[in-house]
Amino acid sequence: MTDVRKQTIGKQSIQFEHAVHILSGASIVGKKEGDGPLGKYFDVIGGEDGMFGCQSWEEAESVLQKEAVTMAIGKAELEKWQIRTIYVGDLLAQTIASSFGIIEFDTPVYGLYGACATMGEALSLSSMAVAAGYGDYVVAVTSSHFGSAEKEFRFPLGYGNQRPLSATWTVTGSGACVLGTKGGKARITGITTGKIIDFGLKDSLNMGACMAPAACDTIYQNMMDFNRMPEDYDRIITGDLGEVGQRILFDMLKVKGFDIEKQHMDCGIEIYDKESQDTHAGGSGCGCSAVTFASYILPKIEKGEWKRVLFVPTGALLSKVSYNEGKSVPGIAQAVVVEHC
Amino acid sequence: MTDVRKQTIGKQSIQFEHAVHILSGASIVGKKEGDGPLGKYFDVIGGEDGMFGCQSWEEAESVLQKEAVTMAIGKAELEKWQIRTIYVGDLLAQTIASSFGIIEFDTPVYGLYGACATMGEALSLSSMAVAAGYGDYVVAVTSSHFGSAEKEFRFPLGYGNQRPLSATWTVTGSGACVLGTKGGKARITGITTGKIIDFGLKDSLNMGACMAPAACDTIYQNMMDFNRMPEDYDRIITGDLGEVGQRILFDMLKVKGFDIEKQHMDCGIEIYDKESQDTHAGGSGCGCSAVTFASYILPKIEKGEWKRVLFVPTGALLSKVSYNEGKSVPGIAQAVVVEHC
Repeated sequence: MTDVRKQTIGKQSIQFEHAVHILSGASIVGKKEGDGPLGKYFDVIGGEDGMFGCQSWEEAESVLQKEAVTMAIGKAELEKWQIRTIYVGDLLAQTIASSFGIIEFDTPVYGLYGACATMGEALSLSSMAVAAGYGDYVVAVTSSHFGSAEKEFRFPLGYGNQRPLSATWTVTGSGACVLGTKGGKARITGITTGKIIDFGLKDSLNMGACMAPAACDTIYQNMMDFNRMPEDYDRIITGDLGEVGQRILFDMLKVKGFDIEKQHMDCGIEIYDKESQDTHAGGSGCGCSAVTFASYILPKIEKGEWKRVLFVPTGALLSKVSYNEGKSVPGIAQAVVVEHC
Repeated sequence: MTDVRKQTIGKQSIQFEHAVHILSGASIVGKKEGDGPLGKYFDVIGGEDGMFGCQSWEEAESVLQKEAVTMAIGKAELEKWQIRTIYVGDLLAQTIASSFGIIEFDTPVYGLYGACATMGEALSLSSMAVAAGYGDYVVAVTSSHFGSAEKEFRFPLGYGNQRPLSATWTVTGSGACVLGTKGGKARITGITTGKIIDFGLKDSLNMGACMAPAACDTIYQNMMDFNRMPEDYDRIITGDLGEVGQRILFDMLKVKGFDIEKQHMDCGIEIYDKESQDTHAGGSGCGCSAVTFASYILPKIEKGEWKRVLFVPTGALLSKVSYNEGKSVPGIAQAVVVEHC
């Protein structure tokens, strides 16, 4: 029996019968991100202290989300009551930046956790909802904050501990997109859902290496499911592999017969100037891919400069408890196909 | 222009054009839950130490998830490769019990966080996916563990701190369901997505009071959106309000014109014997509603004893950081309409 509703293709992908339109993207970042190579693209840049007028880093991160969503809704020329659902996540324990960040919108919400891959997950689930007729307008949003993330995962900032060259710098920022059934100049035509991939790596200061196998798995599966080659994409853009992870990704995909060096871009590599900003392997965090997508990638697709992009945020699945109990750091990568329209 | 795909009704609900079938439910719990009034319904009951053969509580919680999913897939007479996606969550920071719990299934995954409402969120998103044709079989699963939760949110168990009578006891257990397009004797016909509701309460040892306003909001909205009265449901079942939260819910709904005392049941009140088990206001945790649903509620619907149930897991949105920074504890409740077929 054939199910006419069936929209799955291959093993892990969905090709939407009705592509989902991205009506707007908006971003807010910290000063360091504003000083970086992508600085001119962001909508709002905060002050030196990273507090955004708040008393704690966690509150500041909530403000980032609130501002990003407010701007995205405004750019889409909508009012907040028109948003059916918000798909939201961050890196903090119990995703607390999200709970307090979007509470004032008084909108139904699904909280997500996919580590730094959460923007891929949020865009996937929100586009699945719109394509199925579960709402005319929905929002996907994620955030991260350097101060709250270091406190959550590593050492108190006051320790001033030395970071190895494989370490990445958590982006302070939040990116939000409004998705809908029509409008805008970019649309999500399909997705590839990621598996949890564990190569047994245990170094939380080399997350690029932990995530690269997951990025490889999802990108490879996307090309198999959609029967595409790397050159079918103008760009294949990972979230925050950084320079170490990028090298591993290239090597792993070559073994599987794909060379993506010409198409590949990594949000974590683009967002900082490595030499002048002392960020080592690159940027990372839930906010890294979100702000880069909302303010740099999306406009290029909207203008038609890029016709088809594979956007693949990547996440390292760890907590300080799992890390201290000697567990490995598995990775996950969630892919979204975005096309000019 | 009418969108023929549109399946939304009212402000926050979806009524599925094609209802989603629940093919199976499975549960595994700790000894205390096995000794409680629902003990005979659970599939597997662990030993006294709550370790399930592991070295840590976190690892034990991962084993709970793995076992629950394995049993649910087996009961549905499926193989793991037939599962398109797993929707999973737990209460720990960075949902680490989930990452390690389902890694071996080698299945695409979406990680969720909705506090103790996560089973409602998982059933909502997984049924949305199946109804839209995004997979023939998917799994919804959540877990909690008394040891890992107390460590995550409150005091080290060794302190032996005294618990107020409003406190609940985190259930050690995991419940999983397999959803599909056909089969089984129960089906999900609709959902109501919850908002984050904050009444400004700050007592993490009275989570029932923190969650009751959210339960009220979602139940009220469900009845408005579907144009139903309490008597249209055989049972309205909240997740873990406990006795304190239940009282508040009754009072709040009466103000809005609804009396649900006849229909209401709370998983947290059912799962322990308050007098003999010293659990105070009741059970709580992501696993509380999940195991009660999979092993007690679902079979009653399958047998036709209950024709239509509103299942409303409830969550308290806090982390130890937000709590210690003086933030309130908002609540969220995610509702699923389950009917006999």
